[in-house]
Amino acid sequence: MKSYRKELWFEVPTRRGFINITPEVERCLAESGVREGLALVNAMHITASVFINDDESGLHADFEKWLEKLAPEKPYSEYAHNGGEDNADAHLKRTIMGREVVVAVSGARLDFGPWEQIFYGEFDGMRRKRVLVKIIGE
Amino acid sequence: MKSYRKELWFEVPTRRGFINITPEVERCLAESGVREGLALVNAMHITASVFINDDESGLHADFEKWLEKLAPEKPYSEYAHNGGEDNADAHLKRTIMGREVVVAVSGARLDFGPWEQIFYGEFDGMRRKRVLVKIIGE
Amino acid sequence: MKSYRKELWFEVPTRRGFINITPEVERCLAESGVREGLALVNAMHITASVFINDDESGLHADFEKWLEKLAPEKPYSEYAHNGGEDNADAHLKRTIMGREVVVAVSGARLDFGPWEQIFYGEFDGMRRKRVLVKIIGE
Repeated sequence: MKSYRKELWFEVPTRRGFINITPEVERCLAESGVREGLALVNAMHITASVFINDDESGLHADFEKWLEKLAPEKPYSEYAHNGGEDNADAHLKRTIMGREVVVAVSGARLDFGPWEQIFYGEFDGMRRKRVLVKIIGE
Repeated sequence: MKSYRKELWFEVPTRRGFINITPEVERCLAESGVREGLALVNAMHITASVFINDDESGLHADFEKWLEKLAPEKPYSEYAHNGGEDNADAHLKRTIMGREVVVAVSGARLDFGPWEQIFYGEFDGMRRKRVLVKIIGE
Repeated sequence: MKSYRKELWFEVPTRRGFINITPEVERCLAESGVREGLALVNAMHITASVFINDDESGLHADFEKWLEKLAPEKPYSEYAHNGGEDNADAHLKRTIMGREVVVAVSGARLDFGPWEQIFYGEFDGMRRKRVLVKIIGE
């Protein structure tokens, strides 16, 4: 069994944002030499997400608006977590969007449907944060 | 290490619906010959879900009503994604329900609790769409 | 390939509650002897979750309040599932929080970011329920 590990670093210049990280994960897969297996891609921080969806800017605007409706950033005083912090909403938003994805590796490629792309979702940005890529297989 | 891959095709005749796909996944597992490992089951389309819950029609009606409350289909003009499309709500609903499940394989069986069943969740149906089953192990 | 399986049992004395199960999962990993691989941790019951977030009591209070807003327990009659049951809301809450996590195993350790902790989330408690830990690798 082969095993591969890499940390990807991101710094989103705004509080919230989405980055298509599919090319970086594909590079990891090529480095790993794995042809058949599973790739885990997860946020290492608890106010960020890794998720799979469409790379379409209208949809990303819809996600932003929708997450603000389901888990509004303000008022900060609404949240018990916000004693010394102001990011309770980011923990909730990341819960909706998910911590991780597991992707099949088949024939040395990410085994995706036609529109699947992997995104890093940042909900408490303006700092350097990490994504873990772990690939196992043969 | 053994590795197995199969695509399952579904066509839901309505915009939304849930299909219990546990028997199909069990057939995949039998074909794979894997006795100990992990099975990944994921929607290959970004307006559909794979999730685990109860096979109870009342609950499924509750899911439908609840998802319409959290991410209503209409008005279509509410969503930036709906330029040439009308399925932004389907992307959001699938986000709530999840893209994928990972199930343990133990003793050549899906290692489930008493009520766990795997469902395909369709949120933009009336077309043929795929689910990927990837199983690795020994 | 090594493979390890263990069931963890929990009984939360209230309807809802969160338990940090990271130490138990770490014990499983030590028992497994796996140094590189993947660990799947999932609720075996469909009204409970396993998720990763911060071990901070204010945040947990925020989760409780937020989940009650998104999927209220009452009125019970609001839900079609509640014919002979009263736990439809627990199925919905668990859907938001997630059934499972997949964690990388690297150098015989759970490969976590600085604040990641694994929680059991109970939404229909006062009974004994199980979490499955499945670890594969080498």
